[in-house]
Formats: sequence, C-alpha cells, structure tokens
Amino acid sequence: MKVLLVIDMQQGSFTPQTPRHDAGGVVERINQLAGIMRQSNGKVIFIQHNGTRDNEFLPGTPDWKLLPSLTVKEEDILIDKTANDCFYNSVLDSTLKQLAADELIVTGCATDFCVDTTIRSALAKDYNITVISNGHTTANRDHLNAETVIAHHNWVWQNMIPTKGKIKVLSLSEYLLQG
Amino acid sequence: MKVLLVIDMQQGSFTPQTPRHDAGGVVERINQLAGIMRQSNGKVIFIQHNGTRDNEFLPGTPDWKLLPSLTVKEEDILIDKTANDCFYNSVLDSTLKQLAADELIVTGCATDFCVDTTIRSALAKDYNITVISNGHTTANRDHLNAETVIAHHNWVWQNMIPTKGKIKVLSLSEYLLQG
Repeated sequence: MKVLLVIDMQQGSFTPQTPRHDAGGVVERINQLAGIMRQSNGKVIFIQHNGTRDNEFLPGTPDWKLLPSLTVKEEDILIDKTANDCFYNSVLDSTLKQLAADELIVTGCATDFCVDTTIRSALAKDYNITVISNGHTTANRDHLNAETVIAHHNWVWQNMIPTKGKIKVLSLSEYLLQG
Repeated sequence: MKVLLVIDMQQGSFTPQTPRHDAGGVVERINQLAGIMRQSNGKVIFIQHNGTRDNEFLPGTPDWKLLPSLTVKEEDILIDKTANDCFYNSVLDSTLKQLAADELIVTGCATDFCVDTTIRSALAKDYNITVISNGHTTANRDHLNAETVIAHHNWVWQNMIPTKGKIKVLSLSEYLLQG
C-alpha cells in the first residue's frame, strides 16, 4: 500500500514568527495528494510533534493542532511523535507494517529537521520512499535561505545510496505523471 | 566509554576528481583526537564503505583503503558498512554495545551523506553524540560550496531535539577544552 506521510504541519510551526517558504502552496499540494491517495486505496498519515518534554506543542493546544487549511478525513491516521525521527518511540513503524506499506510518499515540515531525519531513518528501515520535492518546507536560516535549504536536501536525498528500499525525489506533477 | 567514529576516510573519496574541503586539516584533527582517545581509555573505530553492490569501493582495493595519512593502530576497530547509515546491516551497534559506549565522537566524510545520516541514526538510538565541527568534510556541490554545506549541517545537528541521548557540536579545540 502507498502511504502519504504528512509531517508536523502544525499551527505552532506556521506562525508569523516562523514563516515557512511557500506554506500555502505546500498545503495545497498535500491536500491534492491526500485526496488522490484516499481515492486510490492509499492511506494518509498525519504526524504531529508532541513536545511535552519541553512544554511545547502540548497535545490539544493550538500549537499542536494541524493547520486548519489541511484537509483531514475520518479514515486518515494521526500519529504523535517526540523526536525529529518520526519513527522514534512512536507507533509509525508498527502502523506501516500493519498497512503493509510498500511506498512512503513524504511531505511536511521542516525539511532540514523532521523531514530529513525521517527520510534517512525510513531508508535504513528498507522502505521505498518518494519525497515530493515541492511538498515540504522550512524557514530561512541565518546562514541559508529556505529555498536553498530545500534544494540542498532534495539533492542529497536524490543521491543517497539505496538500501533494500529505493529513494526518489519528484515534484508533485512529476509524481502524478509517473504514478 | 568514549568512542571516536571516523567515517569513510578512504582513498576513493579523496581523489583529485573529488577534492574535499580542508582534507589535510581534517585528517590532522582526526589523528590528534584518535591519539588522545587511545591514551584515555577510549576507542577508535574506522568505518569503511564497502560498495560491492555497485562494484565500487571493493574491500581490499585502493578506493576502499583508508587514507595513508591517517594513523591507525592495532587496537583500533575497523568496521565495514554498505549504506549511508553506518548502523545499517553492520556490526557497529553491537560493537558499541559491547564497548558500553556512552559517547560517540563523530568525524569523517561526507558531511551531507554518511556523516549526517549516521548522526541522526545514532541519536534515534539514544547515543550521546559530539560532532567535531571541523572534523568532517565534503565536496563542493553544484548548488552550494563545501564550506556552506558543512556550516549548514553543523547548525542543524546543534538544533536537533535530544532523545535519551544528547547532541553537541564542538570544534576540536572547544572539545579539548571541555573534555
């Protein structure tokens, strides 16, 4: 089964203080992809960061909630996590095994933290991965702007050594053409 | 026990066709740190990429061999691996467990591939990590020069969420002052 992972698209990460590159476009593409996934026997998993340890992103608080612009349906799965690696001490791996996931489509925030770490972790767990190159985002950093960070990580993922899993990086339109 | 990881400092990655940023300086700092580690009841582990699957970096060939400028002692441990994540299908984790490693000092090549992936993987395995900020290197990329890639990854690691393990990024001199 194909599984769409939507990582940390939460209100607390998309505030005026933490503007994300092309946030509206990323949400739109995730919604489009999620709709296709639901119609084609795939599954949509929304990952939410739970920062209880640091008293941030507490479950139930506005920060923790998914962006209201995201379309979430009853049949979707919501999973909490506490580290950059969405697999760390979470039910993600067991859920994917139950679903017999054979391809993870990865989207979300932030490119250089949870998205990157989860992609590298999934590859070491032998999952086939497609990263949507324009389906993840981050903020400007002091040393690099967000667009360059996104371009860099897209390039790195494209050049990683496959495990038993393969990794591809495609824009949404490239993915839909191939899909 | 403190364990120094020296990742992929192999001849095949340091050719005139693949120049690495400040390769000489990085080797010098690794040698200095390895010497200190051996004298203070730590352990030095050299990781070597084995690219048998792609007919590259074949064990025993010049590409696979460690740089002759690296000081390797009989008591050091050599471990082969086949993916960007040094833990993937290798004896690294079991070796670290046997050594009762409580801190990994990470150095090597390349910053954006095996070094980064191994750091993120080690953090998800609850290891305490110190990355030596001037102890790893990479090449210029089409979209970013090597120095900026190194600065970016150093910054990201510094800002990762701790697990049961903590992560620090220090230059060699900062590390020696703290050590």
